[in-house]
Amino acid sequence: MNFKEKLSKIVKKNNSLLCIGLDTDIEKIPKHLFKINKTPFLEFNKSIIEATKEFVCAYKINMAFYEVFGKSGFEILEETISYIPKDIIVILDGKRNDIGNTAKMYAKSLFEVLNADAVTVNPYLGKDSVLPFLEYTNKCSFILCRTSNPSAVDFQNLIVSNTPIYQLVARKIKEWNNFDNCGAVVGATYPNELKIIREILGEEIPILIPGIGAQGGDIEKTVKYGTNKSGEMAIINSSRGIIYAAKDESFSEKAKIEARSLRDEINRYK
Amino acid sequence: MNFKEKLSKIVKKNNSLLCIGLDTDIEKIPKHLFKINKTPFLEFNKSIIEATKEFVCAYKINMAFYEVFGKSGFEILEETISYIPKDIIVILDGKRNDIGNTAKMYAKSLFEVLNADAVTVNPYLGKDSVLPFLEYTNKCSFILCRTSNPSAVDFQNLIVSNTPIYQLVARKIKEWNNFDNCGAVVGATYPNELKIIREILGEEIPILIPGIGAQGGDIEKTVKYGTNKSGEMAIINSSRGIIYAAKDESFSEKAKIEARSLRDEINRYK
Repeated sequence: MNFKEKLSKIVKKNNSLLCIGLDTDIEKIPKHLFKINKTPFLEFNKSIIEATKEFVCAYKINMAFYEVFGKSGFEILEETISYIPKDIIVILDGKRNDIGNTAKMYAKSLFEVLNADAVTVNPYLGKDSVLPFLEYTNKCSFILCRTSNPSAVDFQNLIVSNTPIYQLVARKIKEWNNFDNCGAVVGATYPNELKIIREILGEEIPILIPGIGAQGGDIEKTVKYGTNKSGEMAIINSSRGIIYAAKDESFSEKAKIEARSLRDEINRYK
Repeated sequence: MNFKEKLSKIVKKNNSLLCIGLDTDIEKIPKHLFKINKTPFLEFNKSIIEATKEFVCAYKINMAFYEVFGKSGFEILEETISYIPKDIIVILDGKRNDIGNTAKMYAKSLFEVLNADAVTVNPYLGKDSVLPFLEYTNKCSFILCRTSNPSAVDFQNLIVSNTPIYQLVARKIKEWNNFDNCGAVVGATYPNELKIIREILGEEIPILIPGIGAQGGDIEKTVKYGTNKSGEMAIINSSRGIIYAAKDESFSEKAKIEARSLRDEINRYK
């Protein structure tokens, strides 16, 4: 089963375009977990996954939040992945990229060693740096197109022959989609850009959309502009708004409520 | 002691602008090491460092080649760093970048957990994604400007108001250099671009220059165009040409000969 088949199946099963970002931050997880467990980080992820798994199509794991714990972070990352039910998409968000022979190693690490269904890739080095990821034809590579941060404009909105760079990146993504395994990352904080990018990408390329919730992206516009005509091919990510919905013993129950409510809100706008 | 002081000291001590890239690839290291040691990877790095440490100013560790071994790769990475003499610069080449709160985690991981002297950073997300690295004022962040691969042209050479993007990135690097801790990555495979970038950056910003050796960059032009007027502020990297100089028992001896010879050749052109 390739990425898009797996995505389509879980989207239908859980009736959800919601992705939860496991940006697990030791400073933000509930304090009581430190009393009952030596590895509160892992306990936290397990509880969040257990509580929310009926309401999502994907989990996005932000690699920086694991790398910061060195070797043990790597163990937590692997164990977290093992807690995610096999029919839910696992996106490893590391925004890796390098020249060809190095990109090959990153792709191997993410797709083979960690067995991700999808990854995020930075396009700055051009086609030969992205191809080693695309050689994994059953997986999906979400290429950064228009990121959700304020400084995204610094380079992504520069104009080349009347066209902003992020649109040129979107065109390249379409061009590089020979194996039907490219995706784009577009921040929900820029709905107009999202709309234009969906038009460029057409109906078949999935868009990973972070930036709703803590970052302030509008949910209605995200759904309207991000999905294709069938209301599909968008994976809408929320991290902090769900996983830190409460800081006490009720954290997983509150995360569940938030996840269900956000899933339903997304579905209302389809 | 900050990065530039440390760099200046070791450049003088070893009379060298040479950096050796530890892109250690299990498929390329001498076969006999597998017979005598369970961790040939580490034994290889140790031997290379021991043989070449008098002739370099820095070692560049290409993180992808370690991540591909998962948890044990992380251990090898840490141990490799511990073998590098304390007065030699350690550059962690991971080309990381993300939005602000995530970039902070990457910076912490690389500078605090792994204690790198310098890192490589991708600029595609703009200023707010680079600042968390620059907050480590005693360290150096080498920002990708013009990479050494053929597809670098895809985006880095696009023209914005008569100026190619890579030059705009160089200008930003100069602008972001408030703490005197920015550097640029420029491939030796593009000498004309290197010359222009050195002119934009001025005398004080170091350039990390990969691409000589296996990738074919010209050494004379690299030195002439990459250094400042005092013949400094360039860190010239070779990986495969040195570490795989021989595939038999003589590998470290040959690496030593190659390293000394390359250091001397670089010095001749200063």
